[in-house]
Amino acid sequence: MAGERVEFRVSPEHYKHWRVSHDGPVATLMMDVDEQGGLVPGYELKLNSYDLGVDIELYDAVQRLRFEHPEVRAVVITSGKPKIFCAGANIRMLAASPHGWKVNFCKFTNETRNGIEDATANSGQTYLAAVNGTASGGGYELALACDHIMLVDDRSSAVSLPELPLLGVLPGTGGLTRVSDKRHVRRDLADYFSTKAEGVGGRKAVQWRLVDEAVPRPRWDETVAERAAGLAGRSNRPEGAAGVPLTPLGKTRDDDAISYEYVSARLDHDAGKVDISVKGPQNDPPGDIAEAARQGAGFWPLAVTRELDDLILDLRTNEAELGTWVFRTEGDPALVLAHDELLLASSGDWFANEVLHYLKRTLRRLDVTSRSLIAVIEPGSCFAGALLELALAADRSFQLAGVFEDRDPGAEPAAITLGDINTGPLTMSNGLTRLQTRFWGDEAGYAAAGKRLGAALEAEDAAELGLVTFAPDDIDWDEEIRIATEERASFSPDALTGLEANYRFAGPETMETKIFGRLSAWQNWIFNRPSASGPDGALRRFGTGQRAVFDRKRV
Amino acid sequence: MAGERVEFRVSPEHYKHWRVSHDGPVATLMMDVDEQGGLVPGYELKLNSYDLGVDIELYDAVQRLRFEHPEVRAVVITSGKPKIFCAGANIRMLAASPHGWKVNFCKFTNETRNGIEDATANSGQTYLAAVNGTASGGGYELALACDHIMLVDDRSSAVSLPELPLLGVLPGTGGLTRVSDKRHVRRDLADYFSTKAEGVGGRKAVQWRLVDEAVPRPRWDETVAERAAGLAGRSNRPEGAAGVPLTPLGKTRDDDAISYEYVSARLDHDAGKVDISVKGPQNDPPGDIAEAARQGAGFWPLAVTRELDDLILDLRTNEAELGTWVFRTEGDPALVLAHDELLLASSGDWFANEVLHYLKRTLRRLDVTSRSLIAVIEPGSCFAGALLELALAADRSFQLAGVFEDRDPGAEPAAITLGDINTGPLTMSNGLTRLQTRFWGDEAGYAAAGKRLGAALEAEDAAELGLVTFAPDDIDWDEEIRIATEERASFSPDALTGLEANYRFAGPETMETKIFGRLSAWQNWIFNRPSASGPDGALRRFGTGQRAVFDRKRV
Repeated sequence: MAGERVEFRVSPEHYKHWRVSHDGPVATLMMDVDEQGGLVPGYELKLNSYDLGVDIELYDAVQRLRFEHPEVRAVVITSGKPKIFCAGANIRMLAASPHGWKVNFCKFTNETRNGIEDATANSGQTYLAAVNGTASGGGYELALACDHIMLVDDRSSAVSLPELPLLGVLPGTGGLTRVSDKRHVRRDLADYFSTKAEGVGGRKAVQWRLVDEAVPRPRWDETVAERAAGLAGRSNRPEGAAGVPLTPLGKTRDDDAISYEYVSARLDHDAGKVDISVKGPQNDPPGDIAEAARQGAGFWPLAVTRELDDLILDLRTNEAELGTWVFRTEGDPALVLAHDELLLASSGDWFANEVLHYLKRTLRRLDVTSRSLIAVIEPGSCFAGALLELALAADRSFQLAGVFEDRDPGAEPAAITLGDINTGPLTMSNGLTRLQTRFWGDEAGYAAAGKRLGAALEAEDAAELGLVTFAPDDIDWDEEIRIATEERASFSPDALTGLEANYRFAGPETMETKIFGRLSAWQNWIFNRPSASGPDGALRRFGTGQRAVFDRKRV
Repeated sequence: MAGERVEFRVSPEHYKHWRVSHDGPVATLMMDVDEQGGLVPGYELKLNSYDLGVDIELYDAVQRLRFEHPEVRAVVITSGKPKIFCAGANIRMLAASPHGWKVNFCKFTNETRNGIEDATANSGQTYLAAVNGTASGGGYELALACDHIMLVDDRSSAVSLPELPLLGVLPGTGGLTRVSDKRHVRRDLADYFSTKAEGVGGRKAVQWRLVDEAVPRPRWDETVAERAAGLAGRSNRPEGAAGVPLTPLGKTRDDDAISYEYVSARLDHDAGKVDISVKGPQNDPPGDIAEAARQGAGFWPLAVTRELDDLILDLRTNEAELGTWVFRTEGDPALVLAHDELLLASSGDWFANEVLHYLKRTLRRLDVTSRSLIAVIEPGSCFAGALLELALAADRSFQLAGVFEDRDPGAEPAAITLGDINTGPLTMSNGLTRLQTRFWGDEAGYAAAGKRLGAALEAEDAAELGLVTFAPDDIDWDEEIRIATEERASFSPDALTGLEANYRFAGPETMETKIFGRLSAWQNWIFNRPSASGPDGALRRFGTGQRAVFDRKRV
């Protein structure tokens, strides 16, 4: 499907599918999909249906509103097409896509919708869905990600989840989870609604909690403006702050390597792995957060997060056969911790807040990435504070005990350092920090680790505290790392995905973990079944005039 | 695979694979699988590996201990084979089984292991795994369902989860969930452990929390006895009570009908549905719970629960193409409520406790059944108290407004009645009652329903309160029911399974919902993938000396 590599770096002046406009504290994201603007050939994006390209622009727009527009306090999502809000994911695209593409596409769209909720919850930018025409499938799921849903009441517009009756799949972009757990639609009504291809509109949509209000067309524009103003009024975004432009991300990319300023990756196609290196900052942090905002996209925590974000998306989408990602870091741990401290000390500041939440979201992207993650901690590495999260996110970590006697006997031994940032803001989607998740059910272990905040922990200490998995010395080092990565490459990639999706999320579940666990796992199963994706399955047969053929056996 | 129907009604004198022995308050379930005793031909059950037949006996044994042995306070699960505790699910059986069989098998084995935990938590019968040899895969998962795990420390016995490295699937019988969320094994150690086919034994198994203690062989028998006595000492099971024999369940069964005393089912193969009818009690309840225990298996709540349990298992396993189950009831609601009240008023009594928990478990079985559930509430029906749970478990319910004017104009209109039993003991696996789940996020709705406890609610009232989905009158009735069932039969069975698995479980997640949602959904996906089940997949290639062939793409 994706012959060329998918590019995630976009900017508003080149958007094909979205128009962004501003009216003081209210921004409007108008979806106006270019039918001929599909990411790959073979389908037309009719009726504001979307593909990955449309969603990449949406993701970019949401990010830029947060960083570049401190003045924006409410965001209206609406449609530029008459009578249709959004028809959801393009079905021809889904039908033609291989399994892995569908799954990766859904993951990214889910992350973008979670990002919209994150902006509402944590950024003082509340999203309002102004559903000015029919919203079906992923179109309604986009509205569900907003805080308030207005539906035009015109006897024809409706919201619907027609995936099950028409396509034999689930509303898998959070639809089922948000209908039940966010909108609190009663389960039997939700069931009925999700089997009615034509959906529900008007007063009934309100009664069933599918939308918050149904507004007649004559009062539409004024009511949308009123609601947006009301939502903007709840915000604590600052007055008069200058935005931070997300300047173009410098990157070089070929078949074997990807490089940014602080992040680089070597793609080892023979071994099926990627060696990723992340550099800490070169300098002390700015004197205060205002100065950091003036550094803007060059401020190390923001720069490194943007690079990691782009790398994760690039590798996930374009390099499916590289099943193991090995993380290394280099730099001065003290400088990472100093940058963390600036962010934490500026917790009331909008820019510090945005950087922390962006780092949080990027690390969450890593958590739901279907690749084995290994952290390798050697002398000269910089797994401290924010960068230590990479090791805590890993499925397994190795820290060298001592030094490489033959290569550099005089080096400082590898150390890791827990910082305050590891104990609070960077929660996983289960609502816990990676440290809490690691010690889930082991309060003594958690407390013991907490007592060593700020200390440089060499391998024996770190292993004893349970912060790294293994601490081999230099005699065993190369062999252990080699075995771990080779072994990983020999296992069933599917089984690894399932294993990691379970073990990474101990403890409580949230709407977000339900979406990536329960909902996505069922959807992936369905995507893989003949009733959906076989030659006579519903996804393939849609629009052909032929009925799908189902195996009637219930599994 | 299953040419003949699978029979779930077994009894100890015919067990092929388990030996039950008693020593006062301690019972021992000794697994000693008959290699030639497989449920279907084609595999040998070597090394205490199991198939559905082995697990049916285990389920029966666990049930009988609860009802027939009030004196039992601790249960030891151990092996009758030298050096091997249990090798898990038989791999030849799995490899040869169609997808649906595997999924149904895992569901039942999960329910049985949940039942073991339920006995420990709620029955005063604590399970002890005396792992006197290697426990691998499902064998270790069986131990994980016990409250305390002892492993013999003999330098060769280990616990292991070799599914991923050897078979390309997950430890899907709760293994991943219990390792992380019950045993609190650290996630990186859990990851490592689950990739090591040979597993972990001895002191390391204790350090990693995989087992509770490692005991040398010379002290084994005495330590097991000591631990069992200790666990028995915590129990509140009664002194000197007489057990309630689970007498053979009367049943007639042919291709088109299944009948018991209170429950009957018509199997409509053309329409792909089952019409299930449940009768309320004919008489007043006994004067007290002691008299109820003397009625034993004839006591209506126990009798109807056993019949429902057997029916669910029979239909799930033997009738995969009947995708919709339509529930009707008949009888006197007051008599159901009177039986409920006797049980609730006897909450300290062991037998009342067992009946309530058994009903709870049976209704939970319904919740995780991959069939569409529809409740049809007509004049003469008996959806009150315990039987109302069938309507609350349904994906959709219909209650007739008024009466059938042409058939029986003088009838009492259909009514439903909420009782105290609907507000407490019959929790779903998410820890909430079906009523709480129904009104999740709608406290006003929950409170309004709660105010009408004990009232006979006719259709308009019940619909207004949100207790039923639709309330058509007799003019629309037949047509609405027909459309609902026909439409259901026209949808993708897989998509319905996914939809129902999401909507039935609003709100919080527990270890049990994680097992049936997250873990099972991933496992089903993996089971359906070529890397596991294709001709060159790991499940098929196991034991052939040939390596499995994997698609290296990560999904």
